[in-house]
Amino acid sequence: MDYCAVREDYVGRLEKRLTSLVKDKDYPPFIYDSMAYSLLSKGKRLRPILLLAACEAAIAGAPEDGMPPGLMESFKLACATDFACAIEMIHTYSLIHDDLPILDNDDLRRGRPTNHKVYGEAMALLAGDALLNMAYEVMVEACTKYRYQSCVNAMTEVARAAGINGMIGGQVMDVYTQGKEIDEETLHYIHTNKTAALIIASVAAGAIIGGADEADLRKFKRAALNMGLAFQIMDDILDVTGKEEDLGKPIGSDAKNAKNTYVSLFGLERAKSDYFHLWDKCIAQFEDLQAHLLVSFAQELRDRVS
Amino acid sequence: MDYCAVREDYVGRLEKRLTSLVKDKDYPPFIYDSMAYSLLSKGKRLRPILLLAACEAAIAGAPEDGMPPGLMESFKLACATDFACAIEMIHTYSLIHDDLPILDNDDLRRGRPTNHKVYGEAMALLAGDALLNMAYEVMVEACTKYRYQSCVNAMTEVARAAGINGMIGGQVMDVYTQGKEIDEETLHYIHTNKTAALIIASVAAGAIIGGADEADLRKFKRAALNMGLAFQIMDDILDVTGKEEDLGKPIGSDAKNAKNTYVSLFGLERAKSDYFHLWDKCIAQFEDLQAHLLVSFAQELRDRVS
Repeated sequence: MDYCAVREDYVGRLEKRLTSLVKDKDYPPFIYDSMAYSLLSKGKRLRPILLLAACEAAIAGAPEDGMPPGLMESFKLACATDFACAIEMIHTYSLIHDDLPILDNDDLRRGRPTNHKVYGEAMALLAGDALLNMAYEVMVEACTKYRYQSCVNAMTEVARAAGINGMIGGQVMDVYTQGKEIDEETLHYIHTNKTAALIIASVAAGAIIGGADEADLRKFKRAALNMGLAFQIMDDILDVTGKEEDLGKPIGSDAKNAKNTYVSLFGLERAKSDYFHLWDKCIAQFEDLQAHLLVSFAQELRDRVS
Repeated sequence: MDYCAVREDYVGRLEKRLTSLVKDKDYPPFIYDSMAYSLLSKGKRLRPILLLAACEAAIAGAPEDGMPPGLMESFKLACATDFACAIEMIHTYSLIHDDLPILDNDDLRRGRPTNHKVYGEAMALLAGDALLNMAYEVMVEACTKYRYQSCVNAMTEVARAAGINGMIGGQVMDVYTQGKEIDEETLHYIHTNKTAALIIASVAAGAIIGGADEADLRKFKRAALNMGLAFQIMDDILDVTGKEEDLGKPIGSDAKNAKNTYVSLFGLERAKSDYFHLWDKCIAQFEDLQAHLLVSFAQELRDRVS
């Protein structure tokens, strides 16, 4: 299969499982609708694709473990699919809460009204809480279903990355520094935690489930850090130069919220040059791991902004 | 040790561990203060006490497993203490989010201003998210630290109880039915999920970590359901007959928010009689399990409202 077919297969696998988790459940009323509205809207599915691709790369590079190859692979991929759902739930909850009037107060997301615009703020708050919790329900169930120590290790990566020393820490600093002048180190902290942490955890969880050893796991994480930082710079650039109809959300939202961005701190030229430099490093690192799908995916993402 | 000394020991053990998890951390700024403000405020610590007491009862009733008794017991109690912290984090996050203006809009909790009154709504929202996530960080770390399949089983109970088919489901229905007339079945759903689910999970997690078998686990859960329902009826009664200075929160909050309560549906007399009936069943069930601490604790709670 070529890269596009594989990516489509991953997204299909993910959305089928996500749908089974939140769709056509009618009690309690509204909350499943609110969760499904955001979770099943057409996003890029960046993190799940990364997780599944890292899992396959690690399977290909992993030492034999005695199981017949086909069985081992499908077992690990089924487990990785559950984790991909969990990661997408965590990402989605963070968007729903971020968009609330008490945080960014955004009205548009993925080309549609934000969750609270449709379901009200109370339901959006609870839908976010429910998605975060459901992510862990799905992961802990996978730990029991697959009885596989790697599941616990993968969940450890995800839980740390989603928390106060990861994504939430970055969000806190993002809120706290609004309208304040900050230094490069603080911006790096925000980007590393708010955006890169969950991207690193996606790649790490996939690699762990796939069976990567410690040395390879460190390489996967380094490549994912560069990708995560590049990805956030892309977001900052597109918030200035993009078009609302392409992005599905308003342009200039960062300036409206007086946010510090890579562009506001370093200017557009430096942002673009650092952006390509980070992708170069990321792609070389994935090439070194012979993670061909991740290389293709990184190249596709990189070219989005050029 | 007598009952009061044991309870004090549990609370001391819990608060020491909670303090080490959230106190004296200075980055990112404010968020740890906001988390600690609610987490370390003087609550009843109902759920952690239940968890630890259920663990000890299960240890006493569990078959020998080959480890020296003292070692086995301290190993299980250390693990149970981590789970008790996680449960208290989940309970606390739910209170912080509940108190927000977009939900109940309460200004007072445990005799102090609510979290968002002190730290602002944005930080309160994120502190709640961080506490929910940290609960899972602590539990998954315990799974690795104690390498004990029971940890995964206990986490499964907690995750389900905290989610859409448990506490959040109850909160959703609580919000959804405000100002509407509801039937007994719906009120039962709300109470079972909003309040009892996490109480059942506390007892179940403790019993599982302590080594209870399937049959005993079912008995522990049945007793905890009766306790959870009684506990919610007590809350409903006290919201009418209590004093603000005793409760540390405003009286009449349910009526203000047009909430359906046991008292609004059945009247004060029936509420009180059902209340004592539920405690009788609960206490008899804990007696049957020879769970002496849980019996004493249940008796103490019961007498709070009489």
